[in-house]
Amino acid sequence: MATAGMMVFPMLVDVYSGSPAWRAFAVASVFSAGIGASLTFRNRGSLRAGLTLRQAFMLTPLSWFSVAAVSAMPFFFSDYGIVSRSLADSVFEAVSGITTTGATVIAGLDDAPPGLLLWRAILQWMGGIGIIATAIAILPALGIGGMQLFRTESSDRSEKAMPRVRQIAKTIGAIYLGLTLLATLTYWLAGMQLFDAVAHALTSIATGGYSTSDGSFGTWEANGIQWFATAFMLAGSIPFVLYVRLVAGDHMALWDRQVRTMLTFLALVILLMGLWLALSGQYAIEPAFRHAAFNVVSVVTTTGYATVDYAAWGNVAIGVFFGLTFIGGCTGSTAGGIKIFRFEVMAVMLKAHFMRLLFPRGVFPRSYAGRPLDDEIIGSVVAFFAVFFMCYLFLTIGLMAFGLDFLTSASGAATALSNVGPGLGDIIGPAGNFSSLPDGAKWLLSFGMLLGRLELFTVLVLFVPRFWRS
Amino acid sequence: MATAGMMVFPMLVDVYSGSPAWRAFAVASVFSAGIGASLTFRNRGSLRAGLTLRQAFMLTPLSWFSVAAVSAMPFFFSDYGIVSRSLADSVFEAVSGITTTGATVIAGLDDAPPGLLLWRAILQWMGGIGIIATAIAILPALGIGGMQLFRTESSDRSEKAMPRVRQIAKTIGAIYLGLTLLATLTYWLAGMQLFDAVAHALTSIATGGYSTSDGSFGTWEANGIQWFATAFMLAGSIPFVLYVRLVAGDHMALWDRQVRTMLTFLALVILLMGLWLALSGQYAIEPAFRHAAFNVVSVVTTTGYATVDYAAWGNVAIGVFFGLTFIGGCTGSTAGGIKIFRFEVMAVMLKAHFMRLLFPRGVFPRSYAGRPLDDEIIGSVVAFFAVFFMCYLFLTIGLMAFGLDFLTSASGAATALSNVGPGLGDIIGPAGNFSSLPDGAKWLLSFGMLLGRLELFTVLVLFVPRFWRS
Repeated sequence: MATAGMMVFPMLVDVYSGSPAWRAFAVASVFSAGIGASLTFRNRGSLRAGLTLRQAFMLTPLSWFSVAAVSAMPFFFSDYGIVSRSLADSVFEAVSGITTTGATVIAGLDDAPPGLLLWRAILQWMGGIGIIATAIAILPALGIGGMQLFRTESSDRSEKAMPRVRQIAKTIGAIYLGLTLLATLTYWLAGMQLFDAVAHALTSIATGGYSTSDGSFGTWEANGIQWFATAFMLAGSIPFVLYVRLVAGDHMALWDRQVRTMLTFLALVILLMGLWLALSGQYAIEPAFRHAAFNVVSVVTTTGYATVDYAAWGNVAIGVFFGLTFIGGCTGSTAGGIKIFRFEVMAVMLKAHFMRLLFPRGVFPRSYAGRPLDDEIIGSVVAFFAVFFMCYLFLTIGLMAFGLDFLTSASGAATALSNVGPGLGDIIGPAGNFSSLPDGAKWLLSFGMLLGRLELFTVLVLFVPRFWRS
Repeated sequence: MATAGMMVFPMLVDVYSGSPAWRAFAVASVFSAGIGASLTFRNRGSLRAGLTLRQAFMLTPLSWFSVAAVSAMPFFFSDYGIVSRSLADSVFEAVSGITTTGATVIAGLDDAPPGLLLWRAILQWMGGIGIIATAIAILPALGIGGMQLFRTESSDRSEKAMPRVRQIAKTIGAIYLGLTLLATLTYWLAGMQLFDAVAHALTSIATGGYSTSDGSFGTWEANGIQWFATAFMLAGSIPFVLYVRLVAGDHMALWDRQVRTMLTFLALVILLMGLWLALSGQYAIEPAFRHAAFNVVSVVTTTGYATVDYAAWGNVAIGVFFGLTFIGGCTGSTAGGIKIFRFEVMAVMLKAHFMRLLFPRGVFPRSYAGRPLDDEIIGSVVAFFAVFFMCYLFLTIGLMAFGLDFLTSASGAATALSNVGPGLGDIIGPAGNFSSLPDGAKWLLSFGMLLGRLELFTVLVLFVPRFWRS
């Protein structure tokens, strides 16, 4: 029903600009509201008893799947461009939106009706706050992929903790909205049209990557706007609980281990790539570092904007961007991917392992950010990596089965699972889009985006036979 | 010194066939013997005190590196083809031999001097028995990559166990020789020339993959010889301790968990691929299953022969063969790759993890082949996977930095680390070879082959600063 309500905004924009596409939103909104109302009516009162673990597991993917399905309707009903009335295209675009991936099947964005563009941006914005809520309130309680590390009172469902949970949720919502308004204002002052500023603000903070131009952020270059966008993408990829602590007066809240690691890593990659772009003569000094910073941050925060076709920077750049696709931002943010803390946990584990090889009788305690890392958490992180690469392999082979070449398949699978957006290669690279892919590949990628967004296990657990036995 | 002795065989063959290349072997043999003798002389008596853990760690890679260096000499001194006097080529060919990889820089094998061909085969044969010894006697004691699971009395260095260790070593040597003779006889009776039969027998049991023809096993097709070769590759990829038990009277010895898993997996892949090749009309029934069985077994056992250019079977086949490159045979055999038991340990771990997600208060004991899997062993296997994929990523990006395309780099890194042989793509695919690669890429791949062959940690531990501190 919230989704139905959100559809009113693009409808109004289309009505205001005289685009006939407003009808698609009106129909979709009524439809969605109807489904939502009937579900609410049928299940009234039944949630009061609380959720069992199994119900919690089912609720997460089912609610995301159903919001994605409902969100696809405006695309399906609209008459614009490639997506008109193709189910696979509509679902792909909606899933890519709600999962904040940003891969698109629409070419000709610059001439698209404004309602459609706004809807894409709103989808990512909703998806962004949705995943923050999921990562803070649900995943730690389910014990998924090492998220137990982030179990706080906010995932505690006791009576006593509830007022505090509501307070945190409200604060996060306010911060999310505040950052979005700040980005809007910044982009607008830096020279964007107000509409473009709103749309890009919504998709920057959500680390989504949908743009209102086929040239993505390359269309806007003046007044350091690309530097500002880099900062807002970073702002969206930081754990939002840290902002809550910052607002509550903890001035060092952002000096968090995960954030420091991410920034150090980014600085290093950007420095090397910027130097290389400058020294190889491809760009002058400022553009070299600007393009390096923007595009590296865009991929690592899993946003997916581009300022230029970085895939044309040569083989090494392709290899590096391919590797960066897997990394992802911090957990508890809008970013996707494997995420920084999991790499840190793996590093702690590997270091202890090497020490044990050399000193079999030594004792090497493992800890992360002051908390001891027990075997359960490490096992949970490890299981995440293993399942991630298994899913990745199956997705890649699946895409090849639909006739896609190796680079398109390998990078397409990675960009979907990590919710980045663009792949590599001529077809789905930063200068291309996903429209020419066969329908089967689009369905597969849509599934991959949801799988990655929900941290794999919430979805995969539904395929474990034991789950369904009483 | 053993390597110097082995060089006498190709020398004699060249003398007999009137090839002037015998001189290269004579020089190399004298050189190697000189180095060996001086090392023996300098260090006489110093091994009597036994090895510290650190010395054991150093001994393994250093002995493999030095044998590889010495083995490269005949290629370096010879005048034949591409490898003449190029250091990178000579080392690549020798390392590819001794690690039983089978990637080659020599085109025009059919006209090569017989001594050269025999030397390549002997290198793989030596490498095969060398890795069996390393995997049984050294790796379990070092606790590398979960090999602790295979700690037996043969890795126990006490006085009491030694006679039994010698006995096992002798039996394994005899079995290795026996299987090689059986393969020679089989190939010869099936219509190969005696020389080709010997060379292919040496490289089949070693799961090496060096052939005496540019067409690899595609050159021989009559009398079911490709089916026989499939069987001999499988024979080389089974743990050799199982043969010892079989010889000792345990009729069910080969009915081992790791072997069963490998055979089941192979049967499934071969069945699907054979059906697909037959139904898609690419081959008649028998050739479809023959080519599927031969080439799948060749890649999974990390041999690297080919009967046809399977990369031409289309995109799906490329994806599948790419995935198969990582798997590998059983541990304690001549096969490389990640190896079956590590996937089994991961599967046990993942299953327990899914159960814990669903039943957080449940207890799910983990065991493998009747032995409990403690956190140390699981951690060790996990560390292996993590380090394997990190090395893989660095190798791939490194190869791209030398200007190779994505498919060549990604498959080249995989085939080197897994000791398979051919990569994918036009250049290094089953129909190509590695000769046109830049020297830097050849050095990188040579390092990757040794790294993979020695199960990563024995080599990488030398790069840990703590290792060098007193």
